[in-house]
Amino acid sequence: MLDRVVAIDLGGTNLRAAVVATDGAISHHHSIPTDSEQGPEKIVGRLVGLIDEVATAAGLGPDAPTGVAVPGPLDPHRGIVYFMPNLKGWRDFPLGDALRSRTARPIRLGNDGNCAALGEARFGAGVGVDDLIYFALGTGVGGGIISGGRLIDGPHGLSGEVGHVVVALDGPRCHCGSIGCLEAYVAGWAISRDAELVATTTDGERLRLVAAGDPLNATLVAAAAAAGDPAALAILERAGRALGAAIGALVNLFNPALVVVGGGVGTIGEALLAPARRGLADHSFPTARARMDLVSSVLGDDTALLGAAALAFDRASPRS
Amino acid sequence: MLDRVVAIDLGGTNLRAAVVATDGAISHHHSIPTDSEQGPEKIVGRLVGLIDEVATAAGLGPDAPTGVAVPGPLDPHRGIVYFMPNLKGWRDFPLGDALRSRTARPIRLGNDGNCAALGEARFGAGVGVDDLIYFALGTGVGGGIISGGRLIDGPHGLSGEVGHVVVALDGPRCHCGSIGCLEAYVAGWAISRDAELVATTTDGERLRLVAAGDPLNATLVAAAAAAGDPAALAILERAGRALGAAIGALVNLFNPALVVVGGGVGTIGEALLAPARRGLADHSFPTARARMDLVSSVLGDDTALLGAAALAFDRASPRS
Repeated sequence: MLDRVVAIDLGGTNLRAAVVATDGAISHHHSIPTDSEQGPEKIVGRLVGLIDEVATAAGLGPDAPTGVAVPGPLDPHRGIVYFMPNLKGWRDFPLGDALRSRTARPIRLGNDGNCAALGEARFGAGVGVDDLIYFALGTGVGGGIISGGRLIDGPHGLSGEVGHVVVALDGPRCHCGSIGCLEAYVAGWAISRDAELVATTTDGERLRLVAAGDPLNATLVAAAAAAGDPAALAILERAGRALGAAIGALVNLFNPALVVVGGGVGTIGEALLAPARRGLADHSFPTARARMDLVSSVLGDDTALLGAAALAFDRASPRS
Repeated sequence: MLDRVVAIDLGGTNLRAAVVATDGAISHHHSIPTDSEQGPEKIVGRLVGLIDEVATAAGLGPDAPTGVAVPGPLDPHRGIVYFMPNLKGWRDFPLGDALRSRTARPIRLGNDGNCAALGEARFGAGVGVDDLIYFALGTGVGGGIISGGRLIDGPHGLSGEVGHVVVALDGPRCHCGSIGCLEAYVAGWAISRDAELVATTTDGERLRLVAAGDPLNATLVAAAAAAGDPAALAILERAGRALGAAIGALVNLFNPALVVVGGGVGTIGEALLAPARRGLADHSFPTARARMDLVSSVLGDDTALLGAAALAFDRASPRS
């Protein structure tokens, strides 16, 4: 019986490995810094070392499956990473085969946003929920969609990009190159952009004082909003309404029972979720909206790691 | 072996019944006008008559499945119609049980937009395609989503509402009550609204002449655009770009191989699809966009009828 798996969170800052039990208990956790300049071959070497280390320490056999959360778009069916926005030298790299040949273990790969959705569904806010959407609000905006108990990954693994749905035809340019994506409103960089903009006006007086010369970021904006700064509140109102509009579109497309908001920006909480609920009310059917909840992630920094474990437990992908 | 089924298109204008073979051949077609004032019980009576008539004429046995395309939101798992926007008296009506008890036949119900997606996938532009999105551009905008060979219908049947995804946070009010839905740009009523608006200005001079006193509608706008009317072209440019933005959002969510545009407004063709391609380029990932085609429906007026047949053939719903 499959009672424990190896989970890897291949992050832009740290490579994390752990053993995860069926109840989500994390053990044998080990983390080393990611060198973003190293390129895929060397990072594979570090990952192989981590996998063997934690598996051996936990007494797992060679057939214990390993799940890997990857911070970039990939084809999970073929195990090929298209590219990594924050790591150098990854381009159509066959990570699945590279790890399989060097560990001789069953390997499952997933985009980190998709993993987060699986993790939340298996171990977090969505236990027992078959229809769930996860928004990872961080530097960028990713996420994942589970519909009818199945991850929507698409024939080439390019689906579930919940941060890159249009919310405004004439909105700001997104880092992805498109116009008016959700990410261009609610990502860390978008909130920073809005804060820098407002800090140069009279309205931004208090926000400027809070920042005290530091580069403005979402954490400072959240702190200023918590202190009642009207400019900061306006920024989060705009970001939250855009988030609510995108959630509304997804509610009308998927009729989910649960929408989970996580990631660093997600930890802002009600200052963002309250306007998101208003946006949701403006941009979704009441019948579908009445049948869903909007909540914060409960897994915190371990979401992707636990998602990688969920991927490893859930080996029977409908397409693989 | 299941070689023929009964298909019903419960339309706002006509109740249509036919027998459909595995290759999509339609026979024993019969159509009677819909009386929108009659209420569900009487319409059920008419449908039972039609089903028995075409099944008997075709020599089908009592176990031949029947698929019914319904012009309103419904729970396909329980067979309950939530309401019908254009028919009086339908509110949480158990259409599935009503037809089953009076025909003693296997009955499958589907929203007409979802049926159209299934029909296009089985008999039309999407044969052999597992990931397909259908937009039905008519008086309203409906459609359906097939992902990994499976219809996305949601736990309550409230999914796949591709006409009600936001494309503009501050866009026009939609008939559904939400703000800035795709439907509010590209539905027949939205194009009429834009045409009426422009017809009152100097720019609308030619459009007004084309209309010659008739109420402006999408057909007239399309004719004016075909004759080079700049105001009409501008209306279709705006509608098409909104359509392209919504398609872009769905491409980033589903990574489909095919997007099919149908319905009355869909027959406008390139004057709408060319700006839609521009909108798609502005609002989707190149990697996903490069792997999909955008085409017109090939099934025409029979889309929903053939979709009802597809529903009847495809009895093994993953949730039922």
